[in-house]
Amino acid sequence: MPKPGVFDFINKAKWDAWNALGSLPKETARQNYVDLVSSLSSSSESSSQGKPGADREQQEYENLVVTSEDGITKIMFNRPTRKNAISTQMYQEIMLALKAASKDDSTITVVTGNGDYYSSGNDLANFTDIPPGGVEEKAKQSAIMLRDFVDTFIDFPKPLIAVVNGPAVGISVTTLGLFDAVYASDKATFHTPFSHLGLSPEGCASYTFPKIMGPAKATEMLIFGKKLTAREACAQGLVTEVFPDSTFQKEVWTRLKAYSKLPQNSMRISKQVIRKIEKEKLHAVNAEECSVLQKRWLSDECMNATMNFLSKRSKL
Amino acid sequence: MPKPGVFDFINKAKWDAWNALGSLPKETARQNYVDLVSSLSSSSESSSQGKPGADREQQEYENLVVTSEDGITKIMFNRPTRKNAISTQMYQEIMLALKAASKDDSTITVVTGNGDYYSSGNDLANFTDIPPGGVEEKAKQSAIMLRDFVDTFIDFPKPLIAVVNGPAVGISVTTLGLFDAVYASDKATFHTPFSHLGLSPEGCASYTFPKIMGPAKATEMLIFGKKLTAREACAQGLVTEVFPDSTFQKEVWTRLKAYSKLPQNSMRISKQVIRKIEKEKLHAVNAEECSVLQKRWLSDECMNATMNFLSKRSKL
Amino acid sequence: MPKPGVFDFINKAKWDAWNALGSLPKETARQNYVDLVSSLSSSSESSSQGKPGADREQQEYENLVVTSEDGITKIMFNRPTRKNAISTQMYQEIMLALKAASKDDSTITVVTGNGDYYSSGNDLANFTDIPPGGVEEKAKQSAIMLRDFVDTFIDFPKPLIAVVNGPAVGISVTTLGLFDAVYASDKATFHTPFSHLGLSPEGCASYTFPKIMGPAKATEMLIFGKKLTAREACAQGLVTEVFPDSTFQKEVWTRLKAYSKLPQNSMRISKQVIRKIEKEKLHAVNAEECSVLQKRWLSDECMNATMNFLSKRSKL
Repeated sequence: MPKPGVFDFINKAKWDAWNALGSLPKETARQNYVDLVSSLSSSSESSSQGKPGADREQQEYENLVVTSEDGITKIMFNRPTRKNAISTQMYQEIMLALKAASKDDSTITVVTGNGDYYSSGNDLANFTDIPPGGVEEKAKQSAIMLRDFVDTFIDFPKPLIAVVNGPAVGISVTTLGLFDAVYASDKATFHTPFSHLGLSPEGCASYTFPKIMGPAKATEMLIFGKKLTAREACAQGLVTEVFPDSTFQKEVWTRLKAYSKLPQNSMRISKQVIRKIEKEKLHAVNAEECSVLQKRWLSDECMNATMNFLSKRSKL
Repeated sequence: MPKPGVFDFINKAKWDAWNALGSLPKETARQNYVDLVSSLSSSSESSSQGKPGADREQQEYENLVVTSEDGITKIMFNRPTRKNAISTQMYQEIMLALKAASKDDSTITVVTGNGDYYSSGNDLANFTDIPPGGVEEKAKQSAIMLRDFVDTFIDFPKPLIAVVNGPAVGISVTTLGLFDAVYASDKATFHTPFSHLGLSPEGCASYTFPKIMGPAKATEMLIFGKKLTAREACAQGLVTEVFPDSTFQKEVWTRLKAYSKLPQNSMRISKQVIRKIEKEKLHAVNAEECSVLQKRWLSDECMNATMNFLSKRSKL
Repeated sequence: MPKPGVFDFINKAKWDAWNALGSLPKETARQNYVDLVSSLSSSSESSSQGKPGADREQQEYENLVVTSEDGITKIMFNRPTRKNAISTQMYQEIMLALKAASKDDSTITVVTGNGDYYSSGNDLANFTDIPPGGVEEKAKQSAIMLRDFVDTFIDFPKPLIAVVNGPAVGISVTTLGLFDAVYASDKATFHTPFSHLGLSPEGCASYTFPKIMGPAKATEMLIFGKKLTAREACAQGLVTEVFPDSTFQKEVWTRLKAYSKLPQNSMRISKQVIRKIEKEKLHAVNAEECSVLQKRWLSDECMNATMNFLSKRSKL
């Protein structure tokens, strides 16, 4: 009989709770789990509701705000009450939005977050929707989705820029190695607690991070889960430049608007010349990382580590 | 009918002007172009005439001063009134000088600039000598020459050191990624405005720069044309060490003379062990970059961007 | 007739002296050589005797202290009176200890030095035990041993951490590029004087160092023998973090104990995902470096450079 792994653990925690927040079950026996897991996506910790969408255009996405002006398509994570945790649906929406941006007439594409967080990473609630095939089928589906998601970043054909407005965790950090520029508020942090969750790196970070910062710094992040400040991430090459939070948006967008006026084909072609050199390698790394994760998700270690991690968080 | 591209634009500007500086044509209609393009090589901006060649040896080159003593062969760009812009003839002379240095009995080879600039990069006047085959033939010839030029750096068999005495632009920056050490005056700057000219990276920078500084920093230079100070270039690994301009020459040459006394074969072999690992990759990247540039030079975008760029410069 | 190379030079210096320290031969003619070479391993310069082995476990190794607790296997170089110079026997012991650590139930493995030095690198006395096949056979054997030694680091399957308590030289520096984290006291220095000895890089440094710090910084270390401070090595990515010497051991071991409690399989798998990407490359680089060194050891240049180097040291 297959080991249930992290999916089943989270499943046990009455995952209907996730699907109907506000109507949490009362059974004490399971309430603790629910509280723990809820705390990960942290609606309770987040006080931000995001700014009112004053200049929003037509909203095609449930979890994103996508706008396009001045030659810039902006894809904004928009689950501020969940710290922009990326749900299964949101993964799909991000892929759709990136594919649309790759074909629109904008010059550069920007990814950012609404509210206090850039993104708290993968939403653990994603693990609760177990298909008829069971947890092994779920692990397989998750690996396929993750691989498609990361491939979308690898293949993105235009300059892709992250405007990291606040803390970034997990997949929202690892994928930064696939961006062309990363501007960060000094309130941003960069955290990849894979080992703490019994997991292993994704987003091509096992290749890009050692390349960017050398193994001595990369391993402390990827294996030991060290959280970096924005200044540390900049000194180590993960971030292009750090700005004081008070002037962050103004300074970054002024710069981006200037960049967006540069010759469009030239920038697209330059990006492709740079990316072409390692595109094949990146796809191979992505495939390998997802294949390893598919097994990790089903491991006892992952299940126990996730419980431990959540349990510690709830005591803070 | 083929699009004329940047060659034709520059050609239109009465390029005999370049071949006979001082006897500029008077026709107002084209005077503006000539002024603009002239400003790029910047004879008008440069006040430096270079130091008198007190210790020059026999001068075989028109645009270089090549000397050899203390086990060091020094190749000095010597068009100070043109900010050491690299003309077609100068490309050929640099290749000849490097090939001679690779075979002489010196231990290390140094590249530096005479006057205020290290080098302002490719001399746009190179684009004016259109052969009978037209602009497409010109683009083809230029790509071949650029590829040969960069290959000479890739294949250089001894320690190759840049002494960056002042601002460096374009090809004089990108090739630094192929040097073994780069010492810079604090007056040096590093600028690769490829997109501003509708172009794309060369000199293997699309490979070496992301490797040296990570994509987040490399892209801001190579795609968005950010100019780095010497200190920034050093923090990002492009420069080995920065010295105050007042003591730059003295400190660097003292150090180089010490290095030149180290065992010659050992240093040559160490360099080859290091370079061998990526030599094939570097040649492939160079070929790809030149192939892409050959098309860029014929694009409308390149022509328009060059005009825009020059026009802005002329207003400063 | 084959050139004798560095082996014969050192052999001439009455190498029994090495095997029976304290009973140095009195013949003045050869005394100088012996003094010079002795100074390399520097028993005379080292005042440290290492701390008393208060908490040592059973001692299986002559030149190492290997202990295991709190999920951490610690391999400590233990020739403090010789600045932890690595003798032929010690190479073998390090390989054995690493292989044992790779199979024990510890979570992470730490390498450190007893006394003032981390390690002064290869013990030149290794070159004195000339086999019946002569110096060429010795060079061949040395290359095989070096290759096996470095392969052990490449293939090590768990997080491998260096606790660099003091100066590190040669092979003890180059192999740091194969560790997952490197913590250094601010008294540590990093020195690879290959050219000064007529040699060339090993330990995969010809690949890892340019990758970590870019060629402009790597070459100054590997070809020109520049010695880095701990802070410089950290700024350039070779070192994860630097601590004041007064609190070094306490701070580092607190951190390591915390890391050792993270999920074991997860960390092992993460390391393997990261390493797998370049393992084949590392083995190829190691083979090439050893092949080149095998010839260097037999060169006149190496013999003369070693004599010069030792001669200068003796005058300090």
